Amino acid sequence: MFHKRLLHFVQLGGVGVAGYFVGQYGYNLKKEGQNDCLLINGNRIKNMPGLPIFGTVSAAAPFTESGTAKYRVPEIMKYGFPGLDNIHSYDDYVLSYDQRNRVPHWVFEHLTKAHVTKNDAVDRSKCEFMPDESIHPYFRSQNSDYRKSGFDRGHMAAAGNHRISQKHVEQTFYLSNMAPQVGEGFNRHAWNTLEKHVRKLTRVYNNVYCCTGPLYLPRKESDGKTYVKYQVIGANTVSVPTHFYKVVVGEATNGDLHMEAYVMPNQKISDQTPITSFMVPPETIERAAGLLFFNKIDRSKLSSINGRKV
Amino acid sequence: MFHKRLLHFVQLGGVGVAGYFVGQYGYNLKKEGQNDCLLINGNRIKNMPGLPIFGTVSAAAPFTESGTAKYRVPEIMKYGFPGLDNIHSYDDYVLSYDQRNRVPHWVFEHLTKAHVTKNDAVDRSKCEFMPDESIHPYFRSQNSDYRKSGFDRGHMAAAGNHRISQKHVEQTFYLSNMAPQVGEGFNRHAWNTLEKHVRKLTRVYNNVYCCTGPLYLPRKESDGKTYVKYQVIGANTVSVPTHFYKVVVGEATNGDLHMEAYVMPNQKISDQTPITSFMVPPETIERAAGLLFFNKIDRSKLSSINGRKV
Repeated sequence: MFHKRLLHFVQLGGVGVAGYFVGQYGYNLKKEGQNDCLLINGNRIKNMPGLPIFGTVSAAAPFTESGTAKYRVPEIMKYGFPGLDNIHSYDDYVLSYDQRNRVPHWVFEHLTKAHVTKNDAVDRSKCEFMPDESIHPYFRSQNSDYRKSGFDRGHMAAAGNHRISQKHVEQTFYLSNMAPQVGEGFNRHAWNTLEKHVRKLTRVYNNVYCCTGPLYLPRKESDGKTYVKYQVIGANTVSVPTHFYKVVVGEATNGDLHMEAYVMPNQKISDQTPITSFMVPPETIERAAGLLFFNKIDRSKLSSINGRKV
Repeated sequence: MFHKRLLHFVQLGGVGVAGYFVGQYGYNLKKEGQNDCLLINGNRIKNMPGLPIFGTVSAAAPFTESGTAKYRVPEIMKYGFPGLDNIHSYDDYVLSYDQRNRVPHWVFEHLTKAHVTKNDAVDRSKCEFMPDESIHPYFRSQNSDYRKSGFDRGHMAAAGNHRISQKHVEQTFYLSNMAPQVGEGFNRHAWNTLEKHVRKLTRVYNNVYCCTGPLYLPRKESDGKTYVKYQVIGANTVSVPTHFYKVVVGEATNGDLHMEAYVMPNQKISDQTPITSFMVPPETIERAAGLLFFNKIDRSKLSSINGRKV
């Protein structure tokens, strides 16, 4: 966050300077006997004392996109950040990195039909898993950590959710977006079924917001005490989560909001198990993960949670 | 951090307005034929084009303390934040809270002789362990979590480091500042010895900066795989760390900086064991904790680490 805060500082420092020049400009206008208004971008603005403070300076020019890159963070994070630890933003998803466990705390995606529709210009098979150089080397997972571990490099932001451009899908292959997942019966089956379900929600809702991450759930052992236990793999001790969660909000055309929340164990799951059997109250995930999901939405204003009217 | 960022925004928005008025003021000065300068807080400042942008407005008045509370965060955090997750600042220490484990990620203290000297006005026995209402109820530990657990409520910021006022020592009794510690042979003995050692450093150094926190270290098990395993206690599943660390920097009168770094297992430790046997390279703690300590100090500029010349 430090970089972002610095950026704020620089931008707003600029406002101060702009204010100074506008001050002079406003004064001059009045001195020269023009009528009681300012011209801003060609529009006449009533000149109230001390207002407006912005003039036609370069920093006030409308934002124009350069190339295809679009700053998507405010769209993706419309309903709030689940936490603020080590935020990394990519072209089409946002990630909070758990430096201790070398996997994400959470990833956030904003899906529409356009994001999930097959696109011949995008070829997933050309993508390669790659270390994320935006992560400090002490906390960066490597392909070697996963090799021979028996675990898949499981996408948190799913590749199939980012089909608008090749760059988008490539950025889901950063190892910072991975967590060790059981392959057979989980990553390649039950978890994949859940990912497909989320994509299908874009047929029902205009906008789908999806938060995904790992859990490390406690279990009571034979000594009567409760323990958290999870494997770590490779030289960088990448944590193997015991479970994974998804908390999803669908925004309907009429503005209604519908939430679904799932927790799946990181293990082989029978093909016969319907995904509805993994639905849990969102608060249970929040307590276990130490995060608060969609906290800009008053939960009592949701139309449904897990298919039930709120 | 959101609140702090908002504050920045408001403050800097204020600069814009101030800039506007100064712009007018500077112009008026020149028009009225005074010499080519501005008066700011009674000082004459050369009037350069566009500069200065601050005038004598209320927001530019010097900061004055109200009462005994002093904003200590910049002093305590002089050498950098180890991380930025859920920062809570108290009158005499700063804490980053681990919402998933219900214990701190780290606490940071700034010690001088004055902070650690016995003070008859301060009575630790009047302090009570209390839930920290600044923590969201989902993640807040309670006295009931520790009761009958067999673990002490172990201070991360030590009570004996905050003897300047009763309020300071009381604030170390928030449960947010605790982690479950083995009592006999650890919290009451070896760990206490380490805390006393840190206090004694104030006899050698003008300023002592101390970062303290928990670790959850992996162990190889009989199946050849490596696991992190730790107990959790109470209804709020408060994590029992496997180890604790302290990373300390002493600032000498001549500005020389000396670092010491310790890791102790959360278990009964023999009284015969000297604390020097718990010294470790600071990087090993950083990798294990997912944090970077004293990152405003170039480590090659330290005079010593663990008593050895750098």
